[in-house]
Amino acid sequence: MATPAPAPQARRPGGRSARIRAAVHRAVEELVAESGPDAVTVPAVAERAGVHATTIYRRWNSAPELLAAVAVSRLTGDVVVPDTGSLRGDLRQWARDVAADLGDPDALALLRTVAGAATERGAANACLQDRRQQLEAMLERDRERGEEPPALDPLLEGLLGPIYFRALLDAAPMAPARAEAVVDELLARTA
Amino acid sequence: MATPAPAPQARRPGGRSARIRAAVHRAVEELVAESGPDAVTVPAVAERAGVHATTIYRRWNSAPELLAAVAVSRLTGDVVVPDTGSLRGDLRQWARDVAADLGDPDALALLRTVAGAATERGAANACLQDRRQQLEAMLERDRERGEEPPALDPLLEGLLGPIYFRALLDAAPMAPARAEAVVDELLARTA
Repeated sequence: MATPAPAPQARRPGGRSARIRAAVHRAVEELVAESGPDAVTVPAVAERAGVHATTIYRRWNSAPELLAAVAVSRLTGDVVVPDTGSLRGDLRQWARDVAADLGDPDALALLRTVAGAATERGAANACLQDRRQQLEAMLERDRERGEEPPALDPLLEGLLGPIYFRALLDAAPMAPARAEAVVDELLARTA
Repeated sequence: MATPAPAPQARRPGGRSARIRAAVHRAVEELVAESGPDAVTVPAVAERAGVHATTIYRRWNSAPELLAAVAVSRLTGDVVVPDTGSLRGDLRQWARDVAADLGDPDALALLRTVAGAATERGAANACLQDRRQQLEAMLERDRERGEEPPALDPLLEGLLGPIYFRALLDAAPMAPARAEAVVDELLARTA
């Protein structure tokens, strides 16, 4: 995979900062996918991203904190909260997106890192809270439409539980079509 | 924690073999709980269990294979398939047992190890297959009673998904009473 050359002399500080972030995030994702989370050391990331190690320490403090930031960003930041006009439509789209995203080996490697870390529980919790907020936004919109949506937590674990269960324990992640069916089963139950 | 002294001179070979297995499994569980899966090396396990490293190599081949064997044994071997006379009763007891077992920090550390291992997927898959067989046994008994139980896979992921999701991503594992409620919700849906 070709890595774009870093531009440490760039004139716009915002642009440079964003480019460093992108290069560092990409380097972390590649290292995790290739060799697992233990390969994520600040020197290794610095070398691959083409930035100084001090830049990484200044911005992310340590390798575990960097890894957590990348995992949360990659695992929850890519999914946009859908707005289809109905709760069923929103949840179906969301479940499809979550399942499809875990079909990407890099995202799956990060989820395994987050779920497997015995000591660094912060990233796992941050991912969970991000997902919770996304679901809460969809439920809130449903309430604004005058509906009475199901309760948040059973829906969160009933929907993401099966998807993450397959991703973490099975040989292959859940197919997006099956994720949509899980939504239908959950809504039929609470209707 | 006091570790019973190994008895390498014991007279009954079966008893000695069982004692070695128990001491080695205990040593692995302790090392994972204390320092994570990377701490499980054959020399470290041998020292803590009070056995020769060659004994471990002969029986388990390598540290990753030993870790996988201990994880599968600990995560699925402790749960006895319930036989309460009804599918609902069986599933409630099973879900309670699974959730309660993950309240033990040692078992939780092993589940995180299994779910987090990017390369050694064998243990994750073995755990899943063991659970699948346990559930299949309960469904088969229900069919023998003349009932028409729900399909295996949606029930497996609908029941274990939420429990494992909480254990792997949340700050605290699911309470056994909530696990029972998940069973009721699933059965209400498929009834």
